Amino acid sequence: MRDEILMMGKKAREAAHRMAKTNSTMRRQALEGLAVALERERTSIGAANEEDVQEAMRRGLSRAKVDRLRLSDKVMGDMIGGLRELAMLPDPLGEITRMWTRPNGLQVGKMRIPLGVIGIVYESRPNVTVDAAALCIKAGNTVILRGGSEAFRSNQCLAGILQEALKEAGLPETAIQLVGTTERDAVLDLLKLEEYIDVMIPRGGEELIRFVTEHARMPVLKHYKGVCHVYVDEDANPDMAERICLNAKVQRPGVCNAMETLLVHEKIAGKLLPRMAAALRREGVELRGCEKTRTLVSDCLPATEEDWYAEYLDLTLAIRVVADMDEAISHITTYGSQHTEAIVTENFQRGHRFLREVQSSLVLVNASTRFNDGYQLGLGAEIGISTSRLHAFGPMGVEELTTTKFIAFGNGQVRS
Amino acid sequence: MRDEILMMGKKAREAAHRMAKTNSTMRRQALEGLAVALERERTSIGAANEEDVQEAMRRGLSRAKVDRLRLSDKVMGDMIGGLRELAMLPDPLGEITRMWTRPNGLQVGKMRIPLGVIGIVYESRPNVTVDAAALCIKAGNTVILRGGSEAFRSNQCLAGILQEALKEAGLPETAIQLVGTTERDAVLDLLKLEEYIDVMIPRGGEELIRFVTEHARMPVLKHYKGVCHVYVDEDANPDMAERICLNAKVQRPGVCNAMETLLVHEKIAGKLLPRMAAALRREGVELRGCEKTRTLVSDCLPATEEDWYAEYLDLTLAIRVVADMDEAISHITTYGSQHTEAIVTENFQRGHRFLREVQSSLVLVNASTRFNDGYQLGLGAEIGISTSRLHAFGPMGVEELTTTKFIAFGNGQVRS
Repeated sequence: MRDEILMMGKKAREAAHRMAKTNSTMRRQALEGLAVALERERTSIGAANEEDVQEAMRRGLSRAKVDRLRLSDKVMGDMIGGLRELAMLPDPLGEITRMWTRPNGLQVGKMRIPLGVIGIVYESRPNVTVDAAALCIKAGNTVILRGGSEAFRSNQCLAGILQEALKEAGLPETAIQLVGTTERDAVLDLLKLEEYIDVMIPRGGEELIRFVTEHARMPVLKHYKGVCHVYVDEDANPDMAERICLNAKVQRPGVCNAMETLLVHEKIAGKLLPRMAAALRREGVELRGCEKTRTLVSDCLPATEEDWYAEYLDLTLAIRVVADMDEAISHITTYGSQHTEAIVTENFQRGHRFLREVQSSLVLVNASTRFNDGYQLGLGAEIGISTSRLHAFGPMGVEELTTTKFIAFGNGQVRS
Repeated sequence: MRDEILMMGKKAREAAHRMAKTNSTMRRQALEGLAVALERERTSIGAANEEDVQEAMRRGLSRAKVDRLRLSDKVMGDMIGGLRELAMLPDPLGEITRMWTRPNGLQVGKMRIPLGVIGIVYESRPNVTVDAAALCIKAGNTVILRGGSEAFRSNQCLAGILQEALKEAGLPETAIQLVGTTERDAVLDLLKLEEYIDVMIPRGGEELIRFVTEHARMPVLKHYKGVCHVYVDEDANPDMAERICLNAKVQRPGVCNAMETLLVHEKIAGKLLPRMAAALRREGVELRGCEKTRTLVSDCLPATEEDWYAEYLDLTLAIRVVADMDEAISHITTYGSQHTEAIVTENFQRGHRFLREVQSSLVLVNASTRFNDGYQLGLGAEIGISTSRLHAFGPMGVEELTTTKFIAFGNGQVRS
């Protein structure tokens, strides 16, 4: 265990005790201060980032990776704007979510408090440094960040500015700490600090997430992948079905809440699939279908067992015709990733049953899977989408970065 | 990885999909059926248990361990009665905890659903087999149980009866599975099944809990120890303070929510401590005090730094006189275990501030720490007390064995 990592854990815990005593005004002003500081330092941030980008290009990183690394004007503007919006969101802390009275007169309730210390391990995007840190601060937590080595200079620069701004706002600067080394073993040390870190949130590729899950001694909030389904019921409105499926597949195919498999009831398949296929192909989507699909859609490639498990993250779609909703739900249970599932139907009973029986983090009736996103669902902000079921299942906003303690008001009650 | 353990994981997950479709009547009737079956099989359970007890005595286990192992008539009666009470508790599933509407008309909400598959690793008490399994079933989960080797025959007998009763009630018998081997490595295999087990709950000594935390790849809900404090404020009612402190210390000293350290404001210490010490000593409590305490209480042993960290679980109490509430809170933060803390005060401001600033799983004003218990707080049942902050912090009842998914009702919304 590196002393440096252990010390970060201790400082984060100490700072968490101080953060738990802050009020919402202090935290709001601090977030506004962070936005001002980032605005003021745009040039130095840009310069640090440019060094990272240049080195990445020298090292021959893929164009996609270099893109993720780049803090363009738009990315910086969104980052700063996001901070200001976050500052204005209601304070989640101190809320008493329920209160009841026991027969002995003891009033018992649950009060919302910060989670404590949050660890975030992420890859190339340096804006995560700001977005994630700010969300943690909003909910009264402290955070230890470990970014990717490619973004090292950008992250150092951003974290330095954030710490300075926290200090100016009267909050502990150690409420945001960045691991100052890119050694891989430092992550392992971090994952052993279960005494000091309450939860670990990995953000990045599946390999990183599996590594963190395997080695972390504290709970991990994560999601591996999104194999999202739309089920078009026999009683679907065909126009609505087409609109929703197109949106779910093509509006942004490279993200986790895009549709990967379309399930269609056999009674509507004959009418729906030919026009749907044409519409999808106009948008450049490659189709892979089950046998029944291939009898209805010309030149459709055959779907293999692997296609049902696939997260294409691309303009590719698997299509299966099902005999009924039970078969659709069973397909989702077998091949899905518990991320996002939608039904298109005008039938009340089936819409309701699909909603109850499908156990994914978001289940929609007559709307696009693309809505599984903290902003779109109205959480105001998001630190990621969890497909772990414990604590937070689905998009994690400010509230998901809190917990509740029990409180009790007595007038001398003792236990007999 | 033993094939047997992997198969248990798969079966548990399959059964969880079936359990998620059950309604509250089916689960209630199943629990009542479990109670009837246990009642009917009292003799065979007693015989299996007697074999375990005999072997434990042959192997020279401590009297305390043998006691924990024994399913006396009273323990069996409580177990069966507990099942019947649990059956009658309201169903937590399907509750829509909140619902809101987005500007585009999409109605978004959160619906309570089962957690999924729960793993429980425990030590000698065989009644945990029934209590824990029943709580999991109530919340629509399935469970994999791994009991201690000393209770192997009792657990096998109980699990067999439970499975038979589940089958009779039309629920999957694999909703309750017991690991059929006492090999230590089987636990390690279980802890790797993050794909099939959603949460692991270890119950037993600190060594077991540390082992599970270190090796589990899934989240762990646990508590290590309870170093609970009562802070008697300067404005406390002395009679109430004495009553609460006596109850917190002596009513059942061997449990996690008993008081281990008493903190007294210096302004009330002179008046309070001599009479409190006398009352505690009448109950056989050994006192260990700070220097100021020792000037007020005759023959009081000196408390060392280790005493402030100690979970005595016995008739021993550490006492410290503090200059003010900040010093008390700071002591709790430094030495406490985030379990249970109480303040005794007539002062509104300080009662309120203590409640806000102390970050323990239960914070009480003017009541005994002994109330930190699922039954006492009105949860109706309890599977343990968590001092991990994620998901459940404090006593875990039926609701803490559930999670929520997002649901959305649309009329064709797509994302732009």
